[in-house]
Amino acid sequence: MPDLAIGVDLGGTNLRVAAVDEHGNILDRRNTPTKSLRSSEAVVAAMCDHIAQLTSNLKTSGILRGIGVGIPGIIDLQTGVLRESPNLPGWHDYPVREEIERRLGTRVILENDANAAAMGEFWLGAGRDHDSMCMLTLGTGVGGGIILQGALWRGMTGMAGEPGHMTVYPDGPPCPCGNQGCLEQFAGATAIVRMAREAAAAGRAPALAKAINSSSQFTSKDVYDLALAGDEPSRGIFEIVGRSLGIAIAGMINLLNVPMFVIGGGGSGAWNAFSPYIFEEVSRRSFVYRATVQAPAGQETPQPTQIALAQLGSDAGIFGAARLPMLAEEVYEHSRQAGEPTLAAPTQF
Amino acid sequence: MPDLAIGVDLGGTNLRVAAVDEHGNILDRRNTPTKSLRSSEAVVAAMCDHIAQLTSNLKTSGILRGIGVGIPGIIDLQTGVLRESPNLPGWHDYPVREEIERRLGTRVILENDANAAAMGEFWLGAGRDHDSMCMLTLGTGVGGGIILQGALWRGMTGMAGEPGHMTVYPDGPPCPCGNQGCLEQFAGATAIVRMAREAAAAGRAPALAKAINSSSQFTSKDVYDLALAGDEPSRGIFEIVGRSLGIAIAGMINLLNVPMFVIGGGGSGAWNAFSPYIFEEVSRRSFVYRATVQAPAGQETPQPTQIALAQLGSDAGIFGAARLPMLAEEVYEHSRQAGEPTLAAPTQF
Repeated sequence: MPDLAIGVDLGGTNLRVAAVDEHGNILDRRNTPTKSLRSSEAVVAAMCDHIAQLTSNLKTSGILRGIGVGIPGIIDLQTGVLRESPNLPGWHDYPVREEIERRLGTRVILENDANAAAMGEFWLGAGRDHDSMCMLTLGTGVGGGIILQGALWRGMTGMAGEPGHMTVYPDGPPCPCGNQGCLEQFAGATAIVRMAREAAAAGRAPALAKAINSSSQFTSKDVYDLALAGDEPSRGIFEIVGRSLGIAIAGMINLLNVPMFVIGGGGSGAWNAFSPYIFEEVSRRSFVYRATVQAPAGQETPQPTQIALAQLGSDAGIFGAARLPMLAEEVYEHSRQAGEPTLAAPTQF
Repeated sequence: MPDLAIGVDLGGTNLRVAAVDEHGNILDRRNTPTKSLRSSEAVVAAMCDHIAQLTSNLKTSGILRGIGVGIPGIIDLQTGVLRESPNLPGWHDYPVREEIERRLGTRVILENDANAAAMGEFWLGAGRDHDSMCMLTLGTGVGGGIILQGALWRGMTGMAGEPGHMTVYPDGPPCPCGNQGCLEQFAGATAIVRMAREAAAAGRAPALAKAINSSSQFTSKDVYDLALAGDEPSRGIFEIVGRSLGIAIAGMINLLNVPMFVIGGGGSGAWNAFSPYIFEEVSRRSFVYRATVQAPAGQETPQPTQIALAQLGSDAGIFGAARLPMLAEEVYEHSRQAGEPTLAAPTQF
């Protein structure tokens, strides 16, 4: 019987739960809009109901290796407490792992949602041919995940992999994280809307001003549509998105020299509008990047650093969350170092 | 008999060679001013003479695990070619490993000098109680090294660990690496002299102007002496050193969440003048840093991220270079991944 795992992607918009086999096939899935659930307790209860249904339906299909849960926000992996989550208001200091485990009566592996998405792309998507990669997830903000030699790099307290909060312009706009000029303030959807409003208010962008005034729900998608239609101020905003991503990625290449950078999340749909500026900045700002793409005369072909679009769309997080218990030994090793309790052994059910 | 290794630190100023035992004791050493040697061939010949003398003298003292050589500049670890080195003019595309191995008739482990220094501090210095750390070396420029779970992180082509070329101010001064606004352009000795000359030329710094005009050898040390004497423009330059280091380190903490940052190199002597600004910037710019130093109410004591001075001075590089062959299995593993030939087995001599 094949190995199976349950992957959960708890987002501010959707709660997705799926049963995934060891080859990356989704055997069954359940989705619920998160906002239809009023409290953190209701979300956890719905999640556990979905998990129980899936495991019950798949009793005879394989061996359950475990349950992985991706959650947005700052998680203390030692205690399993969600300390803060901009996308899950009301979850401040919520002991999410304990609550799930209490309801299910079994251990779960908790992970930051962007880390889970990185693991998904690494397993089945854009990173599948590499041993190390960095992912940047363009959503409301900018998240990320780092995989080094096959394993998620979580750092000392599980908080590693936050490229969205690298400083790009030290005197730039304030960020909710307490810093100013973070990458997120130039490349996230909220930042795109802010830059559009600023351009409109300054009288520099008549088409954007018109769009803002005619819509009560002006979003980064509207800016993208105008950029596609050739509106220069809108194109300029995506130039800023690309250049700020390029500045941060150049720094990451000079620091980590990993072979693969994957750009995912909803905002990556605007790839054509911003990606040329990523490559321009990275080529100029990273001698390590240049050295990997240009072979010295008479020497072997180099292994070029790649920067590419994610491939799994919104399923990256579920795949990655399901992958974590499959890599149980490695996850156990990480967990042990982070002081977590021992994971339960794989269960046949 | 104890394990021994030869560590070589080839700098632009000094060539240092030492025999080090497995406990970190220097058994014997040789130093030669690099500039007394006219060509790359003469430097390699002197290095090999020193190595031969030390190994011959210590024949009966232990088991030689191998020879590690730290070299400044961009090294292609696959081919052992020094591609470029600002501190070793004339070494452009020099096949340094091949030349050393040919003369000695044995394999050597080549490493970037800043990586070797990081390994030294990790083994015996400021990083010895941690499993992961980043080092920043303040010299003419700014170098660095990253150690993750006990091993040097070299990246895909051995060029990882260049925090000196992370962008701090995207529109800042040009850097010889091709970028502009690199950390090195605000925190290296060359940058300190440049900032002092700029302040003097702008008429903002009479004491600096006087020092520049009265000395044909004006250096960053002169700026430091004036800062110590209370000269405000000179103090302001070290404020910039500290803030730019803080911006880069904050980004590294948000990315890697490692427990220890070590500041070394000659420029770290000015620690008291610049370090308060590092802590100020890091506290403000890294929520990951803050989360590691502030425990939430009612929870366990956190493991604070530390930022501290290096402890081994100019010997860090020799210790680290000698450590590499002692970690032979791990080094072998790294080498294999980088496509290097298999290392020779440890030799008794």
